[in-house]
Amino acid sequence: MAFIQWVLIALVVILSAGPTWSVPSIIQMRPEKDTLLDADVRRKSDHLFCSSWRFTVETNDAGAWTRVPARCVDFVKEYITGDLYASELEAVAANAAEYARAIGVSGDGRDAWVFDIDETLLSNVHYYAVNGFGSQIFDEYSFNEWVELREAPAIIPGLRLYKELQKLGFTLFLLTGRGEYQRHATERNLMYAGFANWEKLIVRGNTDKGKPASVFKSEKRKEIEDAGYIIHGSSGDQWSDLMGFALARRSFKLPNPLYYIA
Amino acid sequence: MAFIQWVLIALVVILSAGPTWSVPSIIQMRPEKDTLLDADVRRKSDHLFCSSWRFTVETNDAGAWTRVPARCVDFVKEYITGDLYASELEAVAANAAEYARAIGVSGDGRDAWVFDIDETLLSNVHYYAVNGFGSQIFDEYSFNEWVELREAPAIIPGLRLYKELQKLGFTLFLLTGRGEYQRHATERNLMYAGFANWEKLIVRGNTDKGKPASVFKSEKRKEIEDAGYIIHGSSGDQWSDLMGFALARRSFKLPNPLYYIA
Repeated sequence: MAFIQWVLIALVVILSAGPTWSVPSIIQMRPEKDTLLDADVRRKSDHLFCSSWRFTVETNDAGAWTRVPARCVDFVKEYITGDLYASELEAVAANAAEYARAIGVSGDGRDAWVFDIDETLLSNVHYYAVNGFGSQIFDEYSFNEWVELREAPAIIPGLRLYKELQKLGFTLFLLTGRGEYQRHATERNLMYAGFANWEKLIVRGNTDKGKPASVFKSEKRKEIEDAGYIIHGSSGDQWSDLMGFALARRSFKLPNPLYYIA
Repeated sequence: MAFIQWVLIALVVILSAGPTWSVPSIIQMRPEKDTLLDADVRRKSDHLFCSSWRFTVETNDAGAWTRVPARCVDFVKEYITGDLYASELEAVAANAAEYARAIGVSGDGRDAWVFDIDETLLSNVHYYAVNGFGSQIFDEYSFNEWVELREAPAIIPGLRLYKELQKLGFTLFLLTGRGEYQRHATERNLMYAGFANWEKLIVRGNTDKGKPASVFKSEKRKEIEDAGYIIHGSSGDQWSDLMGFALARRSFKLPNPLYYIA
């Protein structure tokens, strides 16, 4: 075989190995402009990053945070308007109902359940949909306007659980970080959304101002216990609904990647 | 236009609307046998169900459970051997490291961190891979054989966090549900996997038998506190590592859909 033929064969072998055969991946060439593949890779990497971010948020590993990371805003939007959020809400309500059914309610009205309101019984997704899906710093003024509209719809699995607990004989307490000045609008909204016959709606009073939610809510649960109730269960979308003292026998954490309350 | 032409146009319009235009979805016809589409729909529905199940497990909403639901075994296998588990472990370790760096370690050796071992520092995924990925009831006998092999590899983000905490000056306690009879194998395994210089390895002694992990671990954290240490952080894959009393100032929940320990 002629020398030129060997050279050609060698060239074919080298070229077949592709352009990456000797280039360390760290200096691998990337196309100058976005290609479809590139966009796909970035989307996949964003999804992995944002799924992991959501894990740390829902387990309270992330600690305090003020807004959804910029690269996760689309992820949060898709999640909160999609099947998974709905399915998770159903799953948590099913866990709570199963637990509640196994409790022998005494019938003396002392068996209690504590519900948070926002993102637990009422959904503010409509508000967050026009306010950047958690990407903006919380704005008290515009949120108060939304509260005054009284248009937050019920979270359906929450409403179903609420009604089943009532049938089972539980006394229901609503414990919210909303203020006394929002009590009337909140009551109206709850009623429009289908909630009725709660024992007490507990809001932040003047003396509760400035307290972290976990402290305010623990103090109020303590008052409920001191009044003779047994808090069997507690439902909330924030860990500050479910941590601290005077805890319920079991707590049910609902998903919420939109905002964090200490 | 002739009548027949109008009829044909109407037919085209009706057929374009597809076969579902007037059939309520609840009585929609399904193919008798699995088609590719059907398998795809089932896969999607399993994924939704199992993602939601995993949410309830990782937030402790599910309460006690003994094995992965049958329809989620493939899901758990894909998750635990895939990118997401690795990415979540990295994210939690990053949260913990960020928190630890912000603590002004005093230098007197009293600043402490408590680590669980299994699925926190050492990975038993090799064991679970040949034992049904959480689909089988826990078998103490075969798990003990695996422990005696001393071959559990380090969870890399856990090892990196461990080493960084040591550099920062934290005193490290290892607090595990493993028994006194497993102490030697556990020490060897930890050392082979790259862990060194822990302050104390706390295992279940004779007087701890039968206690729920959350009680045993709370009692041991209390002893650490009573000895003058401040437990700044605690890392564990089970809520029973992170609940009860004598809690760390911040707790870091690692993912684990393979098993539940009360």
